[in-house]
Formats: sequence, structure tokens, C-alpha cells
Amino acid sequence: MHIVELVKANAPITGEQIAELLGLSRPTLRSDLALLVMLGLIDAKPKVGYTPGVTVTPGSIAAQHLQQIKVKDVQSMPVVIREQSSVHDAVVQLFMEDVGSLVAVDDEGCMTGVISRKDLLKFTLGNTNAAAMPVSMVMTREPNVVHVTPEESVIDAARKMINHQVDSLPVVVSKSSAADGRKRFDVVGRITKTIMTKILLDLAIKG
Amino acid sequence: MHIVELVKANAPITGEQIAELLGLSRPTLRSDLALLVMLGLIDAKPKVGYTPGVTVTPGSIAAQHLQQIKVKDVQSMPVVIREQSSVHDAVVQLFMEDVGSLVAVDDEGCMTGVISRKDLLKFTLGNTNAAAMPVSMVMTREPNVVHVTPEESVIDAARKMINHQVDSLPVVVSKSSAADGRKRFDVVGRITKTIMTKILLDLAIKG
Repeated sequence: MHIVELVKANAPITGEQIAELLGLSRPTLRSDLALLVMLGLIDAKPKVGYTPGVTVTPGSIAAQHLQQIKVKDVQSMPVVIREQSSVHDAVVQLFMEDVGSLVAVDDEGCMTGVISRKDLLKFTLGNTNAAAMPVSMVMTREPNVVHVTPEESVIDAARKMINHQVDSLPVVVSKSSAADGRKRFDVVGRITKTIMTKILLDLAIKG
Repeated sequence: MHIVELVKANAPITGEQIAELLGLSRPTLRSDLALLVMLGLIDAKPKVGYTPGVTVTPGSIAAQHLQQIKVKDVQSMPVVIREQSSVHDAVVQLFMEDVGSLVAVDDEGCMTGVISRKDLLKFTLGNTNAAAMPVSMVMTREPNVVHVTPEESVIDAARKMINHQVDSLPVVVSKSSAADGRKRFDVVGRITKTIMTKILLDLAIKG
């Protein structure tokens, strides 16, 4: 890989300079240079010369691939509950749907909060009245809910889950008719660390 | 990329055959073939001919990289509880350590089960006596606990978590002195979907 190394060390460099440094004739070099450009290992810029291609590493290739996967491509169905529902109903629904958290919504279906296994466990242990309480008393309330939009990349979603230490995010779209000026969201999906684990597995086992 | 496609379609194929099919002389081809072999796009096998190189895709590169990451490289500290401890203590410890599950151990420190938020939530809601019960009444018992060893790859761990629908796995090593013939395990770590999400994020943002 003399040529690629030479270009890396001296970029930009002309074909003539490369030929001179390697002690080769231009015609001998021509097909090698053309092939290296085609393979993306070096770039040819008219009137400038040759520059190194974009470095290819496991990270850069995976990053390129992952940045193209959007939340909407992998999200699962949202699981919602009315905020007036009881804690008992929330626990039942968590088990019925086998999810780690529910999105609480108001009468218009807009997100008002999120309630997780963790929230419910903290609240129910030793609290005999817990089961009858409304979900709205236990949930994390908007605007403290970390969310993601369908057009964000899965990497953005992964970053939010890690930074905010949550196991899932509601996927939301802004409600157009926010008459009172408050931001309101419709819930269109959910994305979880389980989905991230599946993406990692897919990346590793598929071609 | 005529040459690579030709090799893919006709492998194994000799240099002479390639030259003939492309209507080129051997000397003209020689440097292109050498470069393609060096780049790994085709393989040259003495007395056989040219065969396609191992296909490089985002998946294959990521797979190679991920297969090299072992559980022991990324595991976190195990969080254990005595199986005689109360459900109340287990919930307190879950919140103190901010983990999704605990590994229950006997007096010798060997794994006897695993207890998760989900197990505890199911058990505590509306059950006023739950808090005083021993962990051993609620946990998933050995040998039904899915586990992983430090030498397995993170991909094996991801696969187990997805297939068995659990959010974390205890990392264990076989106990050498199993006098009664039963398989017994020491708990040396834990691996979670959070760790998998971090690996995905690392892969995407690092070079």
C-alpha cells in the first residue's frame, strides 16, 4: 500500500509527484491510482491532486449504517394508559403487554407522563392504598419526560436512554393544534434498550 | 469492478481465463490483480486460481469487532442478596444500587436464583404481607436462571437476553468444589441491555 501511505503522508499530492517519489512512470501508475480512487482509498481532486479517502474503521462503517436507521424504522407500538386509571390497572397492563413502562395520556390522547415498573414498585411496597391511587399521582410528568421523534436516528435514541438512565422512550409527534401555546405530543411509538440490543445482534449476525 | 464481478461469478478462475474473458493481456492485468488481492477483494490460491475475497459489509466488520468483545471486558459488578433476606430488603437494595435485578445467593455465596423488579412488582401489589416474605419465595430459581460466562462474547449475551426475554444476565463461573455433583456457580458480574446499548453507541460514535 505504498501509494495510499504516500498520499496520507503528503496530501494533497499530484500524480507526477507520486511517480517521482516511487521512481515509476506515470503510465505504470495510472491504473493503480484509478483503482484506488474507485475503491475510496484515495480521492482525486481536479487541479489539486490526490488526498486520503475517508478512513474506514469498524466504528465509521457501523456509524454510517446506524445513522441511517431512524426511530420510525424500528419502533414498537406505543402502550398507553389513561392518567385517571388506577395503579392496579397500570400494573395489570404492564404485565398483560409485557412492557417496562406505560405512557399516560389525557382525554385527548396527549402524553401527560410516563410510569415505569420502578415507579410502581417504589410506590406499592408496603402501601396498602397504592392500588387504588390514580396513575397521575405516581408517574413522571410532562415536561420531565425524555422523548424522541420518529425522524431521529436510533443513535440519538440510544444516547438519550443512556444519558437520562431510562430503559425506554416514548416516540412522539408535536400536536399541531396547541391552542394554549403549551407543547403537546401525540404518542406514536416506543423505543427500548431491548430494541437496541436487537439492532446490535442484527448488526453482528447479518451480512 | 469487472474483475471482482468476474471472479465472483466464475470462482475459482485462473489469471489466464480472466485475461481471455476481458480480452486483455496477462501483463496488463497483473498489477490490478495484485492490488485486488492486497485489498482483500479477491483471494489468490496457488494452483487453483482466484476466488472472491471475504465480503466486507457493515455487518461483517461489526460482527468481527463484536465477536472479539468478551463479557468480562464490559460486565459490571454483581449485585447479590442472601436468599433468606426479605422482599422489603430486596426492593430497598434494588433502589440503592439502581439495578433491575438481584442475584440471590446461599451462605456459601453460590447463586440460587434471580429476582427482578418485575417479580417483585407482581408479588407486592395488593399483598400486604409481601414485604416480610423471604426472597427465595419470589425469585426465579436455579437451574431456570439464564446465565453467561466471562469468556463468552457480548453477542452471545445479547442473544440470550433476547431469546429468553430478560433485561440482564448474571455472569458466573462454575464452582470447582461441587461435592454433591450439582452444578454450582459463583457470581462474578452482571451484563445488561444497558451495556448493550452503550456498546452500540460506542460503535457508532468512536472511530
